[in-house]
Order: sequence, then C-alpha cells, then structure tokens
Amino acid sequence: MIVVLKHGTPDDKRDQLIEWIRKQGLDVHMSVGKNQTILGMVGDTRSIDKDLIACLDIVDSVKTVTDPFKLCNRKFHPAPSVINVGDVKIGGGNFVMIAGPCSVESEEQIVQVARSVKASGATMLRGGAFKPRTSPYDFQGLKADGLELLKIARAETGLPIVSEVMGIEELPLFEDIDMIQIGARNMQNFNLLREVGRTRKPVLLKRGLSNTLKELLMSAEYIMSGGNEQVVLCERGIRTFSDYTRNTLDLAAVPMLHKLTHLPVIVDPSHSTGIADLVSPMAVAAAACGADGLIIEVHNDPMHALCDGAQSLKPEDYAEVAKKVFAVRSIMNPEVAE
Amino acid sequence: MIVVLKHGTPDDKRDQLIEWIRKQGLDVHMSVGKNQTILGMVGDTRSIDKDLIACLDIVDSVKTVTDPFKLCNRKFHPAPSVINVGDVKIGGGNFVMIAGPCSVESEEQIVQVARSVKASGATMLRGGAFKPRTSPYDFQGLKADGLELLKIARAETGLPIVSEVMGIEELPLFEDIDMIQIGARNMQNFNLLREVGRTRKPVLLKRGLSNTLKELLMSAEYIMSGGNEQVVLCERGIRTFSDYTRNTLDLAAVPMLHKLTHLPVIVDPSHSTGIADLVSPMAVAAAACGADGLIIEVHNDPMHALCDGAQSLKPEDYAEVAKKVFAVRSIMNPEVAE
Amino acid sequence: MIVVLKHGTPDDKRDQLIEWIRKQGLDVHMSVGKNQTILGMVGDTRSIDKDLIACLDIVDSVKTVTDPFKLCNRKFHPAPSVINVGDVKIGGGNFVMIAGPCSVESEEQIVQVARSVKASGATMLRGGAFKPRTSPYDFQGLKADGLELLKIARAETGLPIVSEVMGIEELPLFEDIDMIQIGARNMQNFNLLREVGRTRKPVLLKRGLSNTLKELLMSAEYIMSGGNEQVVLCERGIRTFSDYTRNTLDLAAVPMLHKLTHLPVIVDPSHSTGIADLVSPMAVAAAACGADGLIIEVHNDPMHALCDGAQSLKPEDYAEVAKKVFAVRSIMNPEVAE
Amino acid sequence: MIVVLKHGTPDDKRDQLIEWIRKQGLDVHMSVGKNQTILGMVGDTRSIDKDLIACLDIVDSVKTVTDPFKLCNRKFHPAPSVINVGDVKIGGGNFVMIAGPCSVESEEQIVQVARSVKASGATMLRGGAFKPRTSPYDFQGLKADGLELLKIARAETGLPIVSEVMGIEELPLFEDIDMIQIGARNMQNFNLLREVGRTRKPVLLKRGLSNTLKELLMSAEYIMSGGNEQVVLCERGIRTFSDYTRNTLDLAAVPMLHKLTHLPVIVDPSHSTGIADLVSPMAVAAAACGADGLIIEVHNDPMHALCDGAQSLKPEDYAEVAKKVFAVRSIMNPEVAE
Repeated sequence: MIVVLKHGTPDDKRDQLIEWIRKQGLDVHMSVGKNQTILGMVGDTRSIDKDLIACLDIVDSVKTVTDPFKLCNRKFHPAPSVINVGDVKIGGGNFVMIAGPCSVESEEQIVQVARSVKASGATMLRGGAFKPRTSPYDFQGLKADGLELLKIARAETGLPIVSEVMGIEELPLFEDIDMIQIGARNMQNFNLLREVGRTRKPVLLKRGLSNTLKELLMSAEYIMSGGNEQVVLCERGIRTFSDYTRNTLDLAAVPMLHKLTHLPVIVDPSHSTGIADLVSPMAVAAAACGADGLIIEVHNDPMHALCDGAQSLKPEDYAEVAKKVFAVRSIMNPEVAE
Repeated sequence: MIVVLKHGTPDDKRDQLIEWIRKQGLDVHMSVGKNQTILGMVGDTRSIDKDLIACLDIVDSVKTVTDPFKLCNRKFHPAPSVINVGDVKIGGGNFVMIAGPCSVESEEQIVQVARSVKASGATMLRGGAFKPRTSPYDFQGLKADGLELLKIARAETGLPIVSEVMGIEELPLFEDIDMIQIGARNMQNFNLLREVGRTRKPVLLKRGLSNTLKELLMSAEYIMSGGNEQVVLCERGIRTFSDYTRNTLDLAAVPMLHKLTHLPVIVDPSHSTGIADLVSPMAVAAAACGADGLIIEVHNDPMHALCDGAQSLKPEDYAEVAKKVFAVRSIMNPEVAE
Repeated sequence: MIVVLKHGTPDDKRDQLIEWIRKQGLDVHMSVGKNQTILGMVGDTRSIDKDLIACLDIVDSVKTVTDPFKLCNRKFHPAPSVINVGDVKIGGGNFVMIAGPCSVESEEQIVQVARSVKASGATMLRGGAFKPRTSPYDFQGLKADGLELLKIARAETGLPIVSEVMGIEELPLFEDIDMIQIGARNMQNFNLLREVGRTRKPVLLKRGLSNTLKELLMSAEYIMSGGNEQVVLCERGIRTFSDYTRNTLDLAAVPMLHKLTHLPVIVDPSHSTGIADLVSPMAVAAAACGADGLIIEVHNDPMHALCDGAQSLKPEDYAEVAKKVFAVRSIMNPEVAE
Repeated sequence: MIVVLKHGTPDDKRDQLIEWIRKQGLDVHMSVGKNQTILGMVGDTRSIDKDLIACLDIVDSVKTVTDPFKLCNRKFHPAPSVINVGDVKIGGGNFVMIAGPCSVESEEQIVQVARSVKASGATMLRGGAFKPRTSPYDFQGLKADGLELLKIARAETGLPIVSEVMGIEELPLFEDIDMIQIGARNMQNFNLLREVGRTRKPVLLKRGLSNTLKELLMSAEYIMSGGNEQVVLCERGIRTFSDYTRNTLDLAAVPMLHKLTHLPVIVDPSHSTGIADLVSPMAVAAAACGADGLIIEVHNDPMHALCDGAQSLKPEDYAEVAKKVFAVRSIMNPEVAE
C-alpha cells in the first residue's frame, strides 16, 4: 500500500502517521519528492483500512499494490486448476457442456431434456429446483421434489447434475447433487459461501449482476478459505444501461479472469442475453475466446415453460449450437483454450 | 399486458396465440391497425411470462401496463404508512434519525456513541454485529456478543436499536432487537426476505447496489406478502461508472418512491458516499427532498474504527449535521415532507 | 403508441385527451377494461412527445410500439447492406480486416505498418490524424500531415484508408480519404452527422460509450436521412462499473444489431479492452458471433507509441490474430456470418 | 506515477525500464521490498502513457499520484472562483437561478416566460435555439431566429441569456449571447471546447451522461487552457441501469467537485429527472448540498411544448420551487454554501 501525502504536510503529522502504521506491524519506506512525499508500507497490508487512511487530513490518496485474493490467484498457482464433477473434468483444456431446463417441472420433462442434450454432446445436466424469482407471486420451483427428479434423470443418462442452492437451510438436500450452484444474487451471500466452503462439493459460482471481477474472486476466496478449492466461475452478464438484451455479457471477463486466477471460467449465454436467438452466437463467441465451458438452457417445449422460456432453446436448436461450439473448439490452439 | 404483432402475421398464427392466452384465463381485446395488430390482455396477467411471448416468431414486442407490486403500491393505499419502532414513528411526516457505529466493538464504545448521538437528536441507535465483508480475511463483527452490547446501550439511553441480519440462521438472536436490517447485498436473498416476512418485526430494507426501484419494491412485497407490513425502505447508493465516490447516491429515488409506494423511505449518506466530508451535504439534501429519515455512521474514534472508518463522523460532526437537518426540516412544507 | 389511463379517470378528461391526439392527425382506438382504459394511437406517432403525455395527470403510462428508426431498419430492408470502400466490400458475408496504428507518426511508421498488416491479411488501413484526447496537454495528432502520410501508405500498398474526423471544419481535408470515421465521443455530434450525411463517402460510425443500440441507430439515421446510406456500425465497448478492462465489450450487440438493422457491424477489440493481451481472444469471439469485420490497432514499436500503446499489437501478433480469425470465419455457416 | 514490478523481475529488465523513464526526463526512486519492487517517478509525468507502462511484461501495475487537471484544480487555487455573467455573479456564495423554456418557440412565449420567472426570482434566462435531438425527424430548434428572440426577451427583462451551441460554425451567432452552454453530448467535443476557450465568454459546461468528474474537469481544462477561465460546471444526471427517472442525478458530485475545483457548480433538476414532479424536491436538495445555482425548465404551456414538455414546470410551479430554494438557502451556513 502506498500513501501519497498532501503537499505541505507538517513533519510531525507525517511522523505520527508513520508511527501508527508501524504499530499495525508494518514497515514504512519514505520517499520525499519536490511536490509530494510518498510512504510505502511493507508487510501484510490486508488488515489496513485503505479508506480510513485515505480520509486523513494529510493524505492525498492511497494506492494498493497487492491483490486481496490469494488462494485463487494465478500468481501463486500458475497452472490452471482442473475441477472434477463425477467423471467430468472442467478447466485446463477440458471443456464442459452443461445444459438443461431453467426449472425442473416433471420426470418426463427432465429425463427427456437430459437424453436429448446428451445426444447433442452435453456432459452435465442442469435444472432449477429452488428458483430465485423477483416476485413472490411467481413460480418458486419444485424444491426437494425437483432435486429428486434430477437424480432420476442422472440415473437414466449418467450425466452429473448441478442445481442452485438458495440458502444454508437447503444444503442438506444437496448431499447427493454433484455440483452446487451459487446464483448471481447470492454471490455475496457470505454466510452461504462460507458454509459451502465447508462442504467438499464442486461449486459453480456465478458472477453477480453488478460485481467486479475482484469481488467475484473474493467470493471464490470465501469458499476456498473454508477448504473447498473446487470452484468454477461463471460469467452470466452484468447490469448496464444497455436495454436491448436483459444483461450485458462481459465476454472479455473470460480471458481477463484467466490472467487473474487458475480457476476455470464458463459462460452462460442464456441468462446473459435473455433472448433465444442470441444464445447461439454468444455460445460460439465464448468458446472462441477461451471459456472452459458453457451452461445453456434447453427446454422441450419453450412455449409452456414455467419460467424463462424466452431464453431457452429447443433441443434441435441446442444440437446446432453444440455442433458450432465443437467446431470452434477444434480449431482453437491450446494456448487460447486455456 | 399488450402484445404488438409483427406486420404480416398470418391470421391462423394470430388466432393460435389468442387461444393460448385465453387458456391462461385471460380475455383478449384485438385492435387491428394499418401497420400492426395489437392484442390487449384483460385479467390478472401476473402469471404470464412476458419474455416468453416476446420471443414468439409473430410477436414484435410486449408491453406491460400493470405494476407487479401490490401490497406496497401507493395506488391501492394512498396514505403514507407510519412504521412504529418502539416509541419511534417513521413516515407520514415523522422523521427518524438513526445513528451509530459501523461495527459494535465494545460496551464502552457503543454506550458512549449512543449517548452522544442521543444528545444530538438521534432517535434510534444502529450498530453492526454481523458484518458483510467482501474479503473473508476482514473483521466479521462481534456477532451475538455485539447484539448484547447493543441491548446494553439501549438500556442506558432508551434508544431503540437496529442491526443487520445476514442469514436465516441468525434470526433467533434478533428476538429482542427492535428493527431488523436487510443489507444491500441481501436485498434479493429471497429466502431471508420470506422468513423475515414471517416475523412481526419492523424491517429496514436497503436497496441493492444494482437494483431498480421496481426490484426494491418487489423485495418489500416478499416481506409484506408474509404478513409483515412494517417495512422501511433505504436508499444507500447504487453502483455506476462514477468513481470518485464509493457509490452514486440516487436521491431522486426518494420522491420517486414516494409516488410509487406508501412505505417510508430513509437515506444512508454514509455508505452511499464512503467519504465523511460528503455525509453532511448529502444528509441535508436528503432531508430537503423529503426523506423520512437518515441513517448515519458515527464513531467515537474513527482513526481506530475496525471497519468503514472513512465514512464515519465524529460525534461533534454528527451534532453539526443534525442541527442542519433539523433546520431544513423545519422549513419544508408538509407536502414535500411526505 | 399506447396510452394507459389511470383508474378512475373522468370521461371528460379522457375525451379531452382523445380530442388532442386527434388534432395531431392521429386516430384513436379505445379499449375499456375493468381496471384500466387503454388508448391506442393509429398513424404516424413520431411527432408525438411520449414523455409529455406520460406526465399528464390522468395518464398511468405510455408505451411506444413503433421503432423510431426507419432507413436503417431491417424490417423495411431485410437484405443485409453491402458497403463498398474502394474495392473492399463490407457486410452481407464480406468480412473486412482494418488495421493500423492509433496515431500516424511518420511516413516510415505508417508505410511499414501498412505493409506488415497487408501481408497478414488486412484489407484496409486505419491511422489517426486528428486525435480526441481527454487532456488538452496530450498529443493531438499530426492532423493534415497525418492524412497525407496515410495517402502515401495507400499508394504503397493499395489498402483503402479510414481516419477519424473530429469536426465539420476538418471535412474538406478528407476529400481523398476512402472512409470517414465518427468516433465514440462524436456519435451524438448531430451537426457533424448531418454534414457527413451530405457527403457520399462511406462512414464508420462508432457506438458512444454510454449509448444504447437505439441511439446508435438514430445516429446512423441522421447520416442516412441526408442521403448517404453507406454506414458501417462499430461496437467498441461501453462504460460500466467494471474496472479491469477499459470498457466492457458488448459483443451481444453484434447479433442484436443484425436483427435490428441491415447495416454491417464491425468490432474494435483494441479500444474496448485497452489491453493488448485481450485483443486476440475478443477478435476471434467477434468473428465467431457474426461480426462483419474487425478494426485492430497495430504498431511497429508499441514501446514508443505516442498514444494508446497499451492496446496495440506488434505486427507479428497481428499475424497470429488474423490467422485465428480466418480459421473461425472458415467454419462459420453463412447464416451466422450474416 | 508509481510502477509496481512483478515479483522475480530480472535486474537487467528493471534497469532497462528505469533508463527509459529517465530518457523521458524524469527521476526514478526505487524501493525494494521482500515481495515487490516499486519505482517512483519524480517530475512532470503528464507526458507518460500510464497504460503503455502497465502493459510491459515486467510490470504488475501502475498508479498515478498527480491530478491531470491543473488550471481548475482547487489545490492550486483554494478560493472559489466567481464567474460574472452581465451583472450576475455565480460561485463563492453567489447563487444563480437560471430558468426558461427548453426551446424558444416565439417572441410571445419567450418574453412571457422571461417575465414570469423573473418575477419569481430568476436571475438569468435560458432558452434552446439549436437543439440536440436524438432523432433527425424531431424539431431541431429555431436556430438563429431563436437567438434573436432571446435577445428581445433580455431587452424586455434585463435578464442575461444563456443558450446552447452545438458546433464551431454556430459560434459567430453567439457574439451577443451572455453565456454559452456546452451540452452533455458535446462535453468531449474537443474541437468545440478549444474554440470556446478562445472566446472570452462565460461557459456553462454540462457533464456528459457517462463522464467521470475527472473527465468533466479535463474538459473545463480544455477551455481554460485556451485562456478562458470563466467556466461554470453543471451536474445534469448520469446514465445508469436505473430506469424510473430519465437519468440518475449525482448530487454528491456537487460537494465532491467543490473539493476538487474552484469553479462554480450548478444543478439541472429538469433534464436529470425528466419528470416535472421531481424538479422541486431535487432543486431544494441541490440547494441544500451547496450547489451554486440551478437551471430549470419552465414553460408557459407544457401541454403544447415542442420538446421536453414532460420535465417543464408551469410558471406558478416555478414560483413555488423558487420560494423553497430561497428558504433553504437562507438557513445554510456559508461553509456549505461554498
């Protein structure tokens, strides 16, 4: 951390600050220039409140030089992590194709969708049982029953299953689910993150609608600091002023996250756009820029889907998307694919 | 809900859609123009998925005409609600002054702050016991002990207390806390909202960093639909591209919310700006535009605050702010104050 | 345009509004429901101020159903437009590779870069002569001299040239430039748009940092309504809260614009990210999602570039990017390529 | 400027960079820590491209410590500037009330509005003659004729006049206009800023919809570096995801700008909200947080206004707003008023 003092700061005030910093267990390195004096703190500055120092009378500005995330930081772990979900590998050149309906609705529905997406090349099945809905009056999911139906579909197809958990109290129901999804709205539900960090289950952590990459990594850090290092990140669109699509898919986050962290990064082209026609182009774009996988909504009958029908593909459309994605994957060189 | 059909839609496709809408229990009113045909749905359209219809081949666009929030809607409840927290009234011309430290740190600290803010005119005490922190390595609050210290401060001063709950599992500890705060990051933690709706405690619901007013009202609706109508809304800044202040305080949300809902609206000038110098001007501005109260961070020794020191006022500064706020309040006519 | 009246609107007030609308030359279609009355306006509603009607006492809300853009609207012109710049075709399956330095600095530099990018497959040369800089103290470009150097590079390589114009007063200098660029900051410089619409030169119109797709199309409409229909749109990143990259590249705008307009859409992966390492992944992603071309910054010696060196590729890096882009293009089916 | 080198940077690469920095005319101060080496540049770093250095292989990050704006910087000019427009003073405790119609429409209209706002306490008259409209099909203003009508209204009332200029080519027509407005969309029309800097006329510079405070100050710097130091800044709302109001009024920008610059800061509550009902609360809030003035749209007959009627007040409403604003001003202490 670097503190720039205001021009004309009296020596005694400066020394007082230096003394205070030293009391926090840090060394201080002072550099006196013509127009400004700069204090460099040496040591573990994570416990220092940057904003607090920034608001001192004598301080012009404070700059941090250390990343606040550690366990997920690529600097300390240069090789890409590979996360195992059942037999499926994600990251380090392994591409995952997760597909399934927004909501699990019936055994017939989930088994039928599971079979069709598997035939098109999907390697994991998704399906919502606990649904976060903006309105209390909307369908909230089949809950425990939905999870049971997912397990049936897994038994029928062999596809590992992923589903969203909305609260700590639901976690026991996920004992036999292969991967736990933390949704965008819960990305900073720190209690839930901490609790999931105590499990030993792979976690799919979705980026919040207004969260920076640093915050996403700090949330991964919450999970990892509990001992659970099996985290897969998911870019699913951010909220901006732009109003033609539901959210703005921040695809550059994929290569940027690959620079910052060793964790795999997948993309959700369904929720990010909210428009079925845009799923295919954004899915191939995600594959092209090096994503480690895709999570795509597929419904057997979008017209009757209970939620989010607008962004769901029909199985035959998914087959087309998968073909294009595999074609793009086949020509990407390994360097980009990582 | 109004559906605009594409130019040249075949009659049979149009009739198919009309039939489908009727099956959902709605009437359809058709208006045929030269360039477009418009279908108006009559009835309770809340169960209809707007996005789903929007993605049909024959549909150009869909417009909603009904607010999705009902219990908090001013249209159906024109008089402003007054929420009681102990002896304190909020809304309908009653202005609340909530103040206190970001985190409860010790009995001495919280009692001292409580006494000083009460002397300056504060009518409620705030203090964080469970702290949502971006980093797992940061101070997370004194938890249950912090709540106990708040109660001591209440006993000493008579000020009702408000503190943030972060998860359902913590709720039993809030039995004897006067008002429960739902923080910005939990504004769409729907499980928590629903559970808080089952209590009969006043709730302070903070707007999420990237949430629209409609979403804020839908979250209030979650609480109210559980039977708990004692909700106070809080504008605390939204996330934008602007980077000099921590967030962008959206003060126009105050009069706008007053048009949309009968619930009281207070403002947090501390978290929204993150800069102590800006708390005073934004507090008086909030009072001037009709807010029903303020929640302000005050610390006895900001230099040693364990968190968020940068935005905390010293007690003597709070006294100044309170004086100005009361002066502004005294000249506002009742119409604006509502 | 559809006007939803408030519940309980008196008939005389309603009739007054209907009469007013009719005086504007429109027909009104009234639909009376249990809870609300809806007025549909039939005719050319472009001259009606939606906001004005929305603020009438008796009006609950106003919905528009007609796109405000016409000449660039795909509804009225379903085939994709092909824009010719010299021998180069853009759109309708024709992919353009524009490359060159941020700023023209010297004859040696621009000729050398032009030769190297041509060898890698570039089909047009870019180079800034008039530079929009945030600070008045930064390098502002070689101006008229820069344009002359671009022409020399064109003579040497045969590549058509594109350069940014910053004001009407500079237009005469662009007489012999093949394509005129309107930069992001001038996307709503309406005087400049109108003047460029009077020329018969192809225009590269960049999306503004905070402009919606509708506004981008309205700016294209300004140019086209002057009689110049040769407009190419360019997505170059929007401003959001996200801070790791300079801007947020909104790649979903490419397929979305293809739905809305017949004009070609290219992508600028250099300015949108501001980071050289991200240019390659975002360039291939843009090609994958159907962009009609790319504009990429290439510099012979980034370390000494006078501006924007951080996002410029070295010629050998550009060769790599081009190879990957062509590979992705070769496997895209025509449907997506459009 | 401070450069943080990556852990493990070889000494020769580091020394190469130091040498390069020295060649740019700067001194380098090196601080070697356990985990990182930091280079501090001493001297005028404004010519150094921060992004360029940031993208070097050996560089972890770059931090700037000097404000890029100088002439408008309060650090070098602690007293607030007072700008004179005719007899009207703005800033340093002097509050300006600018009012008038969005567009000048007729002599009768502008004279009538001018008289009524003057009677309510307005001290300057505004009126649009050249109108920036998103659509080429919308009313574009009376242009030169509109300016003539403004002068008639000035002659009738004595109020100095301000009107927006949209391009350099229009400047000669503003010879006899008292204050030139640069609109939000032209805040970074650098050619126009530079040209206006060559005049000796007071300038009202509006913040762009997606511009940071730093960019606003850099645009002021463009004008001032041409020798024209009579700049008044105007906050008029920024573009965010929030959709109930047209823009989000960033009122905290007022006290923040007062910390950063000595230039006066006024607020436009009309355009920022786009809703007449919100003008009054936001106007008093702006006065309460220390703005140096207000610019408010007033129309004699909003129902027939040719543009922006939705946000215009009737004269009698303006009289009410003015009363409240003056009441708030009367109780603000001078410290906040500055």
